[in-house]
Amino acid sequence: MKNLLTVVFVLLGSALYAQTTDQTVRSIFDNALSDNTAGEHLYYLCKNTKGRIPGSQEAIHAIEYTKWALIEAGADSVWLQPVPVPRWVRGDEKAIAYTKMGNVELTISALGLSVGTDETGIEGNIIEIMSFDDLSKLGEENISGRIVFFNRPVDNTLINTFTGYAGAVDQRVYGASEAARYGAVAVIVRSPTQADHDFAHTGVVRYSEGIRKIPAVTVSPADADLLSEMAEDRVVSLHLVSTCRNLPDTLSYNVVGEIRGSEKPNEYITVGGHLDAWDISEGAHDDAGGCVQSIETIRLFKELGIKPKRSVRAVMFMNEEMNSTGGQVYEDLAERNNEIHYAALESDRGVMSPLGFGFGAGGERLSKLIGLSTYFKPYGIEKFFRGGGGSDISPLKRFGTLQIGYIPDTQRYFWFHHSANDTFEQVNIREMQLGSAAIASLIYLIDLYDL
Amino acid sequence: MKNLLTVVFVLLGSALYAQTTDQTVRSIFDNALSDNTAGEHLYYLCKNTKGRIPGSQEAIHAIEYTKWALIEAGADSVWLQPVPVPRWVRGDEKAIAYTKMGNVELTISALGLSVGTDETGIEGNIIEIMSFDDLSKLGEENISGRIVFFNRPVDNTLINTFTGYAGAVDQRVYGASEAARYGAVAVIVRSPTQADHDFAHTGVVRYSEGIRKIPAVTVSPADADLLSEMAEDRVVSLHLVSTCRNLPDTLSYNVVGEIRGSEKPNEYITVGGHLDAWDISEGAHDDAGGCVQSIETIRLFKELGIKPKRSVRAVMFMNEEMNSTGGQVYEDLAERNNEIHYAALESDRGVMSPLGFGFGAGGERLSKLIGLSTYFKPYGIEKFFRGGGGSDISPLKRFGTLQIGYIPDTQRYFWFHHSANDTFEQVNIREMQLGSAAIASLIYLIDLYDL
Repeated sequence: MKNLLTVVFVLLGSALYAQTTDQTVRSIFDNALSDNTAGEHLYYLCKNTKGRIPGSQEAIHAIEYTKWALIEAGADSVWLQPVPVPRWVRGDEKAIAYTKMGNVELTISALGLSVGTDETGIEGNIIEIMSFDDLSKLGEENISGRIVFFNRPVDNTLINTFTGYAGAVDQRVYGASEAARYGAVAVIVRSPTQADHDFAHTGVVRYSEGIRKIPAVTVSPADADLLSEMAEDRVVSLHLVSTCRNLPDTLSYNVVGEIRGSEKPNEYITVGGHLDAWDISEGAHDDAGGCVQSIETIRLFKELGIKPKRSVRAVMFMNEEMNSTGGQVYEDLAERNNEIHYAALESDRGVMSPLGFGFGAGGERLSKLIGLSTYFKPYGIEKFFRGGGGSDISPLKRFGTLQIGYIPDTQRYFWFHHSANDTFEQVNIREMQLGSAAIASLIYLIDLYDL
Repeated sequence: MKNLLTVVFVLLGSALYAQTTDQTVRSIFDNALSDNTAGEHLYYLCKNTKGRIPGSQEAIHAIEYTKWALIEAGADSVWLQPVPVPRWVRGDEKAIAYTKMGNVELTISALGLSVGTDETGIEGNIIEIMSFDDLSKLGEENISGRIVFFNRPVDNTLINTFTGYAGAVDQRVYGASEAARYGAVAVIVRSPTQADHDFAHTGVVRYSEGIRKIPAVTVSPADADLLSEMAEDRVVSLHLVSTCRNLPDTLSYNVVGEIRGSEKPNEYITVGGHLDAWDISEGAHDDAGGCVQSIETIRLFKELGIKPKRSVRAVMFMNEEMNSTGGQVYEDLAERNNEIHYAALESDRGVMSPLGFGFGAGGERLSKLIGLSTYFKPYGIEKFFRGGGGSDISPLKRFGTLQIGYIPDTQRYFWFHHSANDTFEQVNIREMQLGSAAIASLIYLIDLYDL
């Protein structure tokens, strides 16, 4: 009789337990979908800290604001981590193409960390190039003294928009040094985006050691098409002014807000986005949204009385866009403080409707993590797979920390990414809220079930 | 030996066949994702036929344009079907709330088919009501002579946004007659939307027989909140002007473009959206997008040389918004002409990223249709389920025609629906293209496999 009672008890207990977990997830979604806090934070960051490039006053403003927001959310402690950052400032920029048909001013944007021209600019005939192979084929005799126009578009037939982006972004990142090897005086790069609009999408350039650094700008896809057409059967000369400058490195900060774990306070689950954004942009999707979703995790846990066993940290990483020193500092401090980093989630793919999560795990742990998708089925969030992660949490890999990437529907992401088009108005608050709820729920479940 | 050869042949044959089908689907997606025709059509309809309410000149313009677009797409034949439509015209509209705190002008929109006020308008104290039950509880003594303010919001915690909408839209559709039973002089209804912005969302009102028709308007959710706050502890008087009018019925048209079937020309697969839109709106998502996707089906079939066994028709239905006479006319003519309607698909839930399709079928047919989802997995389109359909194709139900609803991600749909916010700029062309490709592929597969 005693044995029978035990079984009944256990079954009942486990049924009750499961129901409570479902209800907690439900309460997270209910709260996130009917609370405006996240929307207000996003609005503030977009409209009052627009252009918060590392080292800028706007970045300091965003740091102060999110520190306050984390305190408001109820974090047990909130602090800043000093982060060394490069300081790059845009100058005047102008590109005029001279053709027999007339002169055309192009929509351009200097690349982050690019060297500039002087105020009078430089002039050169353009040469259109679709791949780095073409550079070696054409050789110095055709390229020297020219402005190389990299015009390979994103392949729009690729369903994964990040794969499409990856297939074109090499021109932006490495194009300047590749062209300089053959004597080019500057590069103008088609913006890596599936859109065909008139926004230029910026991003970093990486110069190779020992190669002359030449000015690098992107051009809007619409003007790239125009330039290509103009160049088709006649010489096009380009006058390029871009007086951007690299200043000495300076100091900025990661912002960290923590809920102290109730059972294992020295084990950490991190949820983060990056606080810096391109100087031409409100950085709404990239990545104020990810920061706001991280703050929401703290707010939702506190407001709903969820007490995680492990410490949960929301981190606003500084300087993802230039060279990810914020993520590196976070890892350095974790090591110095002997912290055990159990899992880390990054939201840096925009805040469109959630599809699911990617996990940097295999074997039984992956199976169990994928098994959590049953909790998300009622919310239409069902894509749980191997993969994901993110650049700011990747330094934690060497501790064996589980890497998790938040995966929204990114079909329209590159309409905004790194451009002046990445505004508050391009975010649908409900889509962002669904993502916040999904992220907070996943962290709750991973902690609860020790996954 | 002969038997062995046969087996090899069959296996090879079936493998080749399967590959060809996959490749055709791939070619549909590739073409849809790299062709701008659909985007140009959407732009034209939004910017040049804005406000194409049934019976308007704008609707005639849209009819002429889509007729041309279907010819351009390569339809074997294109024609118009005369459709009787109501003719309702908006007039001047203004709502001013008088309170002790001052006067506030509210953002309103008259409801379609609503009766109007005279030019001087009407004035009455408002009474806030959350449900029809409250009307009977309060009774004539509290409601007579008043303007009833229906303020039940959409429940934002419901994940299915259409379910949320359905839980609030009764106030807009039936509120006027329900309130008039108790002597109300007009109704002002909170816009049924998950958004909290300052756009008023219109839609039809349905008056009950034998009840006095009173003017009906919606108010933006932002102003509904304001009005509710103002009314909380003091009397609010509202001055309402809405000089809209109902004119005699008139004639408009469905636009039909057809590819003649190669084997069963008298069997039809219909793909459609509705061409009419609210007078205050570009009607981009609702439903120029659905029309453009239907035209794309014709263009894609013709351009890729897909010759369906059955006749495939793209239909721009007229007058879905007022009382769906276009769908009724289409069914009447189908019966008169002894057409066999095999399947019909409607796209009228916006043109955001595709999730899948809903099918009005059961048993083995449903299983086979759901089985088609394997063809769509490479494109991330995996939600194939029982349900779906649409109001314009529903009259075909009595022929036993398979009903198919195109299901996009509708989380942000009600930010646009029936409002001035439903503009071209709110459509992401790539998301619409993915939907076009999914629709054309599904029709191709249903015809190919006789599902």
